[in-house]
Amino acid sequence: MTTGSHRVSATLLHRQIAALFRGWGVPEDQARVSADVLTQADLMGIDSHGLTLVPLYDEIVRSGRLEARADIRVVRSFGATAVIDGGGGFGQAPSVQAMDLAIARAKTFGIGAVGVRNSNHYGAAGVYALRAAQAGLIGLSTTAVYKPSIVPTHGREPRLGTNPIALAAPSRNDRPFLLDMATSTVAIGKLKLAEREGKRLPDGWALDQCGRPQNDAARALEDRLMTPLGSTREMGGHKGYGLAAMVEILSTLLPGASFAPLRSADNPRNDVGHFQMAIHPEAFREDGAFEDDLDAFMACLRATAPADGADAVLVPGDPEHANVERRSREGIPLHPALARSVADIAGRWGVDYLLDDPAGEESRASGLDQRTTGGRR
Amino acid sequence: MTTGSHRVSATLLHRQIAALFRGWGVPEDQARVSADVLTQADLMGIDSHGLTLVPLYDEIVRSGRLEARADIRVVRSFGATAVIDGGGGFGQAPSVQAMDLAIARAKTFGIGAVGVRNSNHYGAAGVYALRAAQAGLIGLSTTAVYKPSIVPTHGREPRLGTNPIALAAPSRNDRPFLLDMATSTVAIGKLKLAEREGKRLPDGWALDQCGRPQNDAARALEDRLMTPLGSTREMGGHKGYGLAAMVEILSTLLPGASFAPLRSADNPRNDVGHFQMAIHPEAFREDGAFEDDLDAFMACLRATAPADGADAVLVPGDPEHANVERRSREGIPLHPALARSVADIAGRWGVDYLLDDPAGEESRASGLDQRTTGGRR
Repeated sequence: MTTGSHRVSATLLHRQIAALFRGWGVPEDQARVSADVLTQADLMGIDSHGLTLVPLYDEIVRSGRLEARADIRVVRSFGATAVIDGGGGFGQAPSVQAMDLAIARAKTFGIGAVGVRNSNHYGAAGVYALRAAQAGLIGLSTTAVYKPSIVPTHGREPRLGTNPIALAAPSRNDRPFLLDMATSTVAIGKLKLAEREGKRLPDGWALDQCGRPQNDAARALEDRLMTPLGSTREMGGHKGYGLAAMVEILSTLLPGASFAPLRSADNPRNDVGHFQMAIHPEAFREDGAFEDDLDAFMACLRATAPADGADAVLVPGDPEHANVERRSREGIPLHPALARSVADIAGRWGVDYLLDDPAGEESRASGLDQRTTGGRR
Repeated sequence: MTTGSHRVSATLLHRQIAALFRGWGVPEDQARVSADVLTQADLMGIDSHGLTLVPLYDEIVRSGRLEARADIRVVRSFGATAVIDGGGGFGQAPSVQAMDLAIARAKTFGIGAVGVRNSNHYGAAGVYALRAAQAGLIGLSTTAVYKPSIVPTHGREPRLGTNPIALAAPSRNDRPFLLDMATSTVAIGKLKLAEREGKRLPDGWALDQCGRPQNDAARALEDRLMTPLGSTREMGGHKGYGLAAMVEILSTLLPGASFAPLRSADNPRNDVGHFQMAIHPEAFREDGAFEDDLDAFMACLRATAPADGADAVLVPGDPEHANVERRSREGIPLHPALARSVADIAGRWGVDYLLDDPAGEESRASGLDQRTTGGRR
């Protein structure tokens, strides 16, 4: 087995991820949905929320706090809203169901919102928001996290997850607008990158246990005391704290999930919550007017004169769309360390490891025999 | 006329503000609503959005771009959503109507959203969100601004307003959660304060015309090139930029108002847009469960151990609620410079200036004759 860095196709990645979920005991249809969401994140370049999640998910499965064969149910339904019980399983299947239900309600009522409780990590928020935009609606997706890491302004203990907010909106000729952001100053992935590169963290990304700036990446990763967006009080950190709290209210308190610091010790589940909302532009505007305006809006933002020596001004979503284009063509880069870890996990659960040989993949994907096409392309 | 610094009661302030709006030609009922919103902001300590707005509003009236006798109409209605045309007038009356309509729809459908177009400055976003919480619902309010000041990440031109987001939620025994934040790093009021105190601005609040940090408060006020929350790219400024763009999509593009940088030169109005949304917790939870959880959530946040040497950890809304309590009792402080400016404007429009004499006010408010109570308290 080679574990050198190479690229794998989305098709193969999807097959591998689905196989792993099935290996953990997840039913076929739910495994496929989880694989959809993780593969989409990898295509979008949100590397922290694609295949990289497999080791974390394996840990959650082994903790016994996840029900692999989840019974997902709509437990409340009122007008344009609903609540889904995720049955203690992975977050993707109930969250896709929730967004699809929110979209359906929005088509009927102009707006729809569906909360999910008794769930787990749901992957990248942007994937769900984008799903709504691809259906022609504005999508908003937020989630709580089962472990707190954001420290409230003036505090020194973590209370809130990195609680992301994603909003996507459909355009006419352009690609969708797509904001997908953690409400912490930086994502935890940035600490890992700094550690790997042996760099000190700038003031304001993470805190030490007294609430002072933590510049040591390794210790920051251990403590996970993240600042809210804005960082210090002077630079608006109380706003990021407020946004993280807002996300917790929508994702946890509204559907009735558990706020992590107050989760009952005898709760056998992580009981994470999510919030999915869709707005139908046609309820507000004549058909197509919103999408035309969004085209013009994004073009105007991109046309902003750049600062001296700076890159061009982008619109939220531009990097993700560019990644999807390139990675659909060239494949998704697979880091050797991640490949090894996934191979180990696959082996442990008796699941085939599929990410080895790009040539084999290509021939399978195209339906051609390797011998007749002359091997690797 | 004395213009020394003193405190005025909310009742008197309300009377003065309503009189000014009537002086500008605003009908009685709409003038009262505008006075409600501005007075509430002053009570909450959002000093930048109370009486302080009078000189700005006077400028807008004199620009001829505002229709004082606005014809406010619901122009679309679909399921849980609606659009209100503000008739080119002040933003408060259509925005209160929009939030009240969103609340009504949320009681019927679980969630409701109403956009406003053809409007103007609407005051403090938090006042509208709080209105929903006081009715027992979660309220979200966002607005665009008629003049751009936020510079997109990597840019050096302003494209977005300071586009605030407010979210309020009802608790059981506690006060409502209330987040009210501009999506810029700091509000423009902070630049004014620094200028008044002769202080240099820290890096990252404002930019110069080349996109570099601007430390001179006076020049920053002149240029109004504000950074988005997070400030630099390294500290997450692209997230604040994304949030400001999200607010613009909801407030401007969705109801069909004008995006300021693309506003047609022959548009006689500012055509500002707003977005009001309400969510009924009872649609999602058993009666009272959400409010109980919010009590526990806020208590847990406040109980966070403070950083070394730091103040106690607060919940968004704590400072505003404390201000309302204190200022309802002690009155609202009136800065002499603002008092002079308001007196001048009142004089110009033939409106009585009422904020002069706190003793006179007290006796009028209590219905007692000054002579019988022995004068000032």
